[in-house]
Amino acid sequence: MKGIFSVLVENKDGVLSQISGLFARRGYNIDSLAVGETEHHDISSMTIVSTGEDWKIDQIEKHLNKKLDVIKVRRLDELDSVALEMMLIKVSYNQQNRAALLETCLATGAQIMVMTPKYMLIEIHNAPDMIENFIGLVKAYGILEIQRTGTIALSK
Amino acid sequence: MKGIFSVLVENKDGVLSQISGLFARRGYNIDSLAVGETEHHDISSMTIVSTGEDWKIDQIEKHLNKKLDVIKVRRLDELDSVALEMMLIKVSYNQQNRAALLETCLATGAQIMVMTPKYMLIEIHNAPDMIENFIGLVKAYGILEIQRTGTIALSK
Repeated sequence: MKGIFSVLVENKDGVLSQISGLFARRGYNIDSLAVGETEHHDISSMTIVSTGEDWKIDQIEKHLNKKLDVIKVRRLDELDSVALEMMLIKVSYNQQNRAALLETCLATGAQIMVMTPKYMLIEIHNAPDMIENFIGLVKAYGILEIQRTGTIALSK
Repeated sequence: MKGIFSVLVENKDGVLSQISGLFARRGYNIDSLAVGETEHHDISSMTIVSTGEDWKIDQIEKHLNKKLDVIKVRRLDELDSVALEMMLIKVSYNQQNRAALLETCLATGAQIMVMTPKYMLIEIHNAPDMIENFIGLVKAYGILEIQRTGTIALSK
């Protein structure tokens, strides 16, 4: 199963290292992790996505709750949440496939941030599986660089 | 100064813990960190933003390069990069301030993902300082929850 955790933590040195250490030591898989400040500068908020057997996901929740610098752990239901990811991707193109790449961006809601004679720097934000889908669509053009944010999610 | 690092790492257990541990142990500040897969499932890519004295930012680059599981470190120039962040934010509203909140979203390019009688769940993606700006704009309405991705960046 997929576990989506929304975790409020103290915004201090070493918290990220504590949390990621917990996953590493216990062999829990991290599919994605995103961390950012909240409106209170002493509190950060993380979204952690992990896949594994049900009992492992339950265990992760318990272990997160035990950590000193963790203020609150919420487990999000996939169907009852808005989950999004953003990606920046540099895709190369030539005169033959230029129009097709532009059409692909138009069809998927991706935005061209920079266009050079050799590549387009494209931004897309969507559900995580649609990000994967976009990568599949442009792979054949030649991907030069990718940066993904990881998933963030809030309950509806 | 602000250091923006784009770091390619092996996608294996414990890498995130290694990197965040480096920052924690040496007292380097992490403003934001985003990590996601690339098109190769054995390679992940991170954007790490840190502020500090020039020599400290130089030191971070050196230490990152020394890590075994780090494949490549690139330091990005703020002016020559596209840097973006995404945020999901739940903002409460009432009949008196409803129209003003909708106008604020329209004016800033923020998108309302879910609207309930009590709050709006809003998505915005933009330059990191514009995300801060949006938080400032909606603070007075009452912020219920925030999730930010942290900055991702690619060179132009």
